[in-house]
Amino acid sequence: MTQMEIVGLGSALVDVLAHVTDEFIEGQAAAGMQKGTMALIDEKRAEALYDLLPPAIESSGGSVANTLAGFASLGGRGAFVGKIAEDQLGRVFAHDMRAMGVAFDTAPLTHGAATGRSLVLITPDAQRTMNTFLGAAREMGAEDVPLDTVRGAAVTLIEGYLFDSPGPTAAAHAAVEAAKAAGRRVAVTLCDPLCVGRHRATFRALLDEGSADIILCNEDEVRALYETEDLDAAIGALPCPIAAVTRSARGAIVVDKGRSQAIAAVPDVAVVDSTGAGDAFAAGFLFGVVRAMPLLEAGRLGVRAAARVITTVGARADAPLTEVLKG
Amino acid sequence: MTQMEIVGLGSALVDVLAHVTDEFIEGQAAAGMQKGTMALIDEKRAEALYDLLPPAIESSGGSVANTLAGFASLGGRGAFVGKIAEDQLGRVFAHDMRAMGVAFDTAPLTHGAATGRSLVLITPDAQRTMNTFLGAAREMGAEDVPLDTVRGAAVTLIEGYLFDSPGPTAAAHAAVEAAKAAGRRVAVTLCDPLCVGRHRATFRALLDEGSADIILCNEDEVRALYETEDLDAAIGALPCPIAAVTRSARGAIVVDKGRSQAIAAVPDVAVVDSTGAGDAFAAGFLFGVVRAMPLLEAGRLGVRAAARVITTVGARADAPLTEVLKG
Repeated sequence: MTQMEIVGLGSALVDVLAHVTDEFIEGQAAAGMQKGTMALIDEKRAEALYDLLPPAIESSGGSVANTLAGFASLGGRGAFVGKIAEDQLGRVFAHDMRAMGVAFDTAPLTHGAATGRSLVLITPDAQRTMNTFLGAAREMGAEDVPLDTVRGAAVTLIEGYLFDSPGPTAAAHAAVEAAKAAGRRVAVTLCDPLCVGRHRATFRALLDEGSADIILCNEDEVRALYETEDLDAAIGALPCPIAAVTRSARGAIVVDKGRSQAIAAVPDVAVVDSTGAGDAFAAGFLFGVVRAMPLLEAGRLGVRAAARVITTVGARADAPLTEVLKG
Repeated sequence: MTQMEIVGLGSALVDVLAHVTDEFIEGQAAAGMQKGTMALIDEKRAEALYDLLPPAIESSGGSVANTLAGFASLGGRGAFVGKIAEDQLGRVFAHDMRAMGVAFDTAPLTHGAATGRSLVLITPDAQRTMNTFLGAAREMGAEDVPLDTVRGAAVTLIEGYLFDSPGPTAAAHAAVEAAKAAGRRVAVTLCDPLCVGRHRATFRALLDEGSADIILCNEDEVRALYETEDLDAAIGALPCPIAAVTRSARGAIVVDKGRSQAIAAVPDVAVVDSTGAGDAFAAGFLFGVVRAMPLLEAGRLGVRAAARVITTVGARADAPLTEVLKG
């Protein structure tokens, strides 16, 4: 068994990316669609919504899966844990992970749900609105966690969306417990403000009990976590030693034992599709963390990785990210 | 039944697009890979080759299917005839055709082969090398041809690749016969020089017997058809009333009852991926033909449609082609 720098647990999803107008998103408000957020949908709704979409392209996705792909692209050794089905989209997902050099050995679901997919609607402002049918991804359980790999990895990364389903929640807790018992660090992504709204108590418990050492989020998510409009107050409330808070065009803030430092965004980036920006930031930032770079440098790596991803359609860069290591 | 302007018969394929180096292509020469051409492969080879590829994206493809998608994007009324399986990639293909406004009612294969796919390898020079597993596409037969729709359409478009398999060959002949008996025009795409090599006798018979009224090809294909290096001689040998010969960066030549006219390419196009350029040209050209534009204008439409497609990854433009109608 190769020792991993990061083990990430997340939703194994294939993105279905389509360009739509703002009016299209507004027209779906009654069905629960809210621009810039992720809504969980069932298979029936996924099919009905797909019928309304223009031609799409398919590209492997999933938040923590994207981060692991980016981490491997930077030269890091990572493993992904997530549930696919034994179907065509599952094979697409597995291929894309392994082709990036990410270890991916979770046993696929052999019957029942199909591989999960996220209908990602890209508006002309390059924002994305996601509608996710979890499918097989929600069938992951504690038995899928490779405990030895977790115990050996410097960081175990937990996707906040896991807490949306019972099995993945159990898997997340099992991984956190194994990592902490082995003296390893745990990183948690907050995913989106609505996810924070659904799981605020869980996230705060992970922080308060000292299980979450690293928080990865954006400014809206940390505000939602502490239910305040005051960004400084929200960041100040975080009890964990390390945090990184992304701010879109305003760059990011890294927090090192209570001390905040701002990082500017990469200037003049032609944004094509913001899908995966936060995930790519996490890849660069965690690469810096596990390679023991100063936190400010890790944050800069994250900002540069995000800038690369938003210039292409889809959640992953279409060329290796290693160039961002050059600064 | 809505009357169609064009009915197209072709291979229903999902493209799997991956960026590779020239060295990768050269390394596969022993397995029959030749840069810039299409090789037919079986499912076993498709899976072995897929394992060697970097992360990919999936996008609906198929030569004549791409042309119908482009034709609909221009505002034309078209139907596509081709065989998918009842699987996830088949649903992707059907969705993308219908979402473009293309009528697509061929009964899917309910057992046996999976939906066909083409592993499209894009080299840094934006050329593509295709490895196609036809799967369900080769199970199309004469019974799949909607004869009434063919009889009512101004043009029936036949993909040269159909002659690679017995069932699709029978479908092509049935469609040609129905179209000609109804006094309609038949267009044939030559697809690639190797395809011409495999089916020279068939293509020349279709031309000599007057079945093919319109030939769509590139300069290498027409040279291969008449086994000469002399482009003018090859074009002069074509007995059909209408032909369009694409020449990549040198534009195209349209032939109107033996009279050739050159059309310049769109200057200064940043080529990202040449996949689908010929198919898009055919869409624009045939749109001009069925709308009774002067042939030179139809050719210009084709050149502009091709220029749009090669600036995006994949065989189809990511925005409606209607802007190319503005000139």
